[in-house]
Amino acid sequence: MRLTRYFLPVLKETPADAQIASHRLMLRAGMIKQSSAGIYSWLPLGYKVLKRIEDIVHEEQQRAGHIPMLMPTLQGADLWKQSGRYDAYGPEMLRITDRNDREMLYGPTNEEMITDIVGTYVTSYKALPLTLYHIQWKFRDEMRPRFGVMRGREFLMKDGYNFDLTKEDALHAYNRHLVTYLRSYERMGLQAIPMRADSGPIGGDYTHEFLVLAETGESEVFYDSEITDLSFGAREIDYDDKAQCQAVLEEFTSRYARTDETHDEAVFAEIPEARRRVARGIEVGQIFYFGTEYSEKMGAFVQNEDGARVPLHMGSHGIGVSRLLGAIIEASHDDKGIIWPEGVTPFHAGIVNLRQGDAATDSACDGLYNALIAAGLEPLYDDRDERAGGKFATMDLIGLPWRITVGPRGLANGMVELTSRRTGESQEMSPEAAVQRLAHIYADR
Amino acid sequence: MRLTRYFLPVLKETPADAQIASHRLMLRAGMIKQSSAGIYSWLPLGYKVLKRIEDIVHEEQQRAGHIPMLMPTLQGADLWKQSGRYDAYGPEMLRITDRNDREMLYGPTNEEMITDIVGTYVTSYKALPLTLYHIQWKFRDEMRPRFGVMRGREFLMKDGYNFDLTKEDALHAYNRHLVTYLRSYERMGLQAIPMRADSGPIGGDYTHEFLVLAETGESEVFYDSEITDLSFGAREIDYDDKAQCQAVLEEFTSRYARTDETHDEAVFAEIPEARRRVARGIEVGQIFYFGTEYSEKMGAFVQNEDGARVPLHMGSHGIGVSRLLGAIIEASHDDKGIIWPEGVTPFHAGIVNLRQGDAATDSACDGLYNALIAAGLEPLYDDRDERAGGKFATMDLIGLPWRITVGPRGLANGMVELTSRRTGESQEMSPEAAVQRLAHIYADR
Repeated sequence: MRLTRYFLPVLKETPADAQIASHRLMLRAGMIKQSSAGIYSWLPLGYKVLKRIEDIVHEEQQRAGHIPMLMPTLQGADLWKQSGRYDAYGPEMLRITDRNDREMLYGPTNEEMITDIVGTYVTSYKALPLTLYHIQWKFRDEMRPRFGVMRGREFLMKDGYNFDLTKEDALHAYNRHLVTYLRSYERMGLQAIPMRADSGPIGGDYTHEFLVLAETGESEVFYDSEITDLSFGAREIDYDDKAQCQAVLEEFTSRYARTDETHDEAVFAEIPEARRRVARGIEVGQIFYFGTEYSEKMGAFVQNEDGARVPLHMGSHGIGVSRLLGAIIEASHDDKGIIWPEGVTPFHAGIVNLRQGDAATDSACDGLYNALIAAGLEPLYDDRDERAGGKFATMDLIGLPWRITVGPRGLANGMVELTSRRTGESQEMSPEAAVQRLAHIYADR
Repeated sequence: MRLTRYFLPVLKETPADAQIASHRLMLRAGMIKQSSAGIYSWLPLGYKVLKRIEDIVHEEQQRAGHIPMLMPTLQGADLWKQSGRYDAYGPEMLRITDRNDREMLYGPTNEEMITDIVGTYVTSYKALPLTLYHIQWKFRDEMRPRFGVMRGREFLMKDGYNFDLTKEDALHAYNRHLVTYLRSYERMGLQAIPMRADSGPIGGDYTHEFLVLAETGESEVFYDSEITDLSFGAREIDYDDKAQCQAVLEEFTSRYARTDETHDEAVFAEIPEARRRVARGIEVGQIFYFGTEYSEKMGAFVQNEDGARVPLHMGSHGIGVSRLLGAIIEASHDDKGIIWPEGVTPFHAGIVNLRQGDAATDSACDGLYNALIAAGLEPLYDDRDERAGGKFATMDLIGLPWRITVGPRGLANGMVELTSRRTGESQEMSPEAAVQRLAHIYADR
C-alpha cells in the first residue's frame, strides 16, 4: 500500500480523554475513532490488525477440528427466559423491542442459542464430539465504558462451545481449547498465563482465565515466576490424543497462578519467596467446563450407546478479539508508539523514501515495493512529499516491526537501511538482501 | 473435511413455511437455522459460502484501490438527526435506548457515520480521491420478513463510499464501482444486469441496480436481450484510467434495461420486438452518485487547490452479501438441490466412498482426500457408514460442483468416477487424473 493512496489519519496531539497507552496510541495511530461511548469505528489500520488476530484465531480453532459458523447479533428474549438468564443478567444486557413489540436483545454471549441449535439437530451420541464456534460482535452495556477497545460496549469475541457425551470427553475438549489458546496467543506475540478462575454460581474447578501481564491490567495477579519460563513453541500436537492435551494442561497449570478472585494467601506463601510475584494482568480469554447446566435447561439431549436419553456435557470458551489489540499494545509499546509483534502487524514492513521526487530514489523504492509484494509480503510505502523526520515519526507511531530507509547517499553504494522497530538497530544491505531477510523473518507466519 | 467430523444437519422433509426454492434448499442443506423472524444462524455450510462471497467482494474492492475498514453495528441517533433521516426513516429503523437513556439505532446503512469520519480527518483535496468500504451486519425491521436470507431483518452488506473533489472524479468512482461489481458477480457465477434505478428524492441519473434474472425475483424487469450476451470476462482494467472505466459503463448500460420503477413503455417499444424481454429479477447491488447532499449536511468539506472550502462529492455503493446466497441458489438449482458455481462452492469437491469400512476403498479415499488438500483444494469426504443412495442424495442436495465416487469395482481397474453436478455427466479416470482435472478447473479461482 502506498501511503498517499491510504487513509491513515494519525494525530499529532495526545487525546486528552484517553487514560491508558493502548487507547492513546490507537487513537493517535489512526486505528479507531469513537462513534458513541464505548463504540468504535475501526479505521483501515485498526481493521487490518483486527483481521490478523481473527485469522490467527480461526486457524488455530480449525487446526483442532473446531467448526466455524456464525450466529446473529440480535437474539429473541425467549431463549434467555428458558435458561433463566433474562432476568438475572442485569442492566449490562441491551434489551430491545422491535416494531412488533417482541422482546429481543443484543447478544452478550451465545450459550442459549448454540445449545438450542445443537439440541434441535443432534439426537445421537454418534454425532459427538462436536465443537462449534463463531467470531461475532457482542454488546455489553457497561455503565462506564473506558480504556478504548479494552472495555468497550460493542466488542468482537470468539466464543466456542463443546458438546460431549461424557464429562471425560468434555474435559478433553477443555484441554484442547487450552492448547489452541496457548498457540493463538503466542502467535500474536503475547504471553498469556492460564490462571485459575472463579467458576461462579455453577461451581467446579474447570475454568481458567488467560492473562497478559501489564501494569494497566484490571486484575491483580499472583503467580510463581517459573510459569513465565514456559512457552508452547512449535511443538506438534495431536488434538485427538487425550493424554497429550492433558499433559499440556498439567504443564501450564500446575504452578501457582491466580487472580485476586481465587487467590489463596496460604498456598501462595508455600512458594519459595524469590519466585513469588504480584503483578497486574489483562484478561484476554477464558475456558469453562460447566457440565449439563445448559443442555438440561435448553433441552440438548442425545441417545447414548445404551439407548438412554442423556444431557450433553458442555463448555464455553472465549477469546476477546477486539480487546486483544489493546492488550498487545499495552504489552508492546514505547514512548514513540506501538511495536507490533510480527504475527499481527498490519503491514510487514514500511518503506521510507528520504527524497521523494528524486528519480533514482523513487525508482529504487518502487523496485523494493514490488519485490516485497512478489515475496508475498505487504509493505507500506511512505511516498508522501514530507521530511524524513515526519516519516520516521509516523512509522514509529504505527509500529511496523521493520522499516527500510531508502536515500540517495546509501543508493550511491547500492545500499538501503533495514531497521528493527523493537531494538532500533539498523543494518545497511542491498535491497535484494533486505527483501530476503524479511521473507525469512515472516516465512512461518 | 470428513463428514463424520462436520456438522451438516440436512433435513429430509421440505420445510412447510419456506415459499421459494433458495429458502427451502438452504434449510434442507443445513446452511441456516432461523432464530427469530428474519434472523438466522449461519450453520457451518452456510457460513462457508458466506465467507467465499465476502472474500470475492473484498478482493475486487481492493483490486480497485478501495480501502476496507469496519464501522460498528450500533449508531448514535445524533448523526441521523443531523442528516434529517432519523425521523424520515420510519419503522424499518430499529431504534434502541441504552441504560443511560441515550437514543441509538441498529445501522441500516452508514452514509452519516462515514461522512462524519471523513469530515473529521480529511481537510485537503490532496487526500482525495478516497473510497472506503466495509462489510458489516445491518438491520432493517421489515414488517413481514420472508424468503429466508433474501428478505431477512439482520443481513450482511458491503457498503462503500467514495469522496471526491469534483463531480467528474466522483463519476469516475461510480464507473469504477460498476466495473468491480461486474467482476464480483461474474466470479460468483452470476449474471447481474445493471439497470437504471430510481434515484428517489435526491434525483439525478446516476444510479444503477444490479439484477439477477430469476422467476422468484421481487421486481419486474424489462430489457433488450442483447444485454445478456455481454460478459466482462478476464479483461485487464486500469482502475485509474477514466476512459477505460467509462467505456465499460457505456458498454454495459447503453442497452435498455430497467425495473418497473423506471420502465418507460415508449422507449421499450422502440427495441425490435424479437429482442424485447419482460422477466423478473432479484436485486443484488446498487451504485449511486448523490453529489454533496451528505457532505453539506454532515460537514465534510476540504480546501481545494485555490484554498476555497468546498463540500465533497460522494456516492454510496452496496452489495447484498447475505442475500446473494439466496440469489445464487435461485439462479442455480434443480429438483435435487443446489448447484454451486465453482467460485463460491463451500467445498471444491465431494468424495463418496461406496463401501465404507473396506480397507482398500477407505485407503483410496484417504489418498484422494490428502492429494486434493495437497493440491490446495478443500474436499468434503462422506465417510459415513451409509448407503450409496443416501450419500449421493446429500451431495446433490448441498450442491458441490464435482463429486468423486470411489468403489471397489472401479478400484479393481485403478479407476474412480468424476461427476459434474451441473450436467450429471460422469467420467472414469485414475485418482491422480481426477485431482489434476480439479486442480485445473479451480486454477484461476
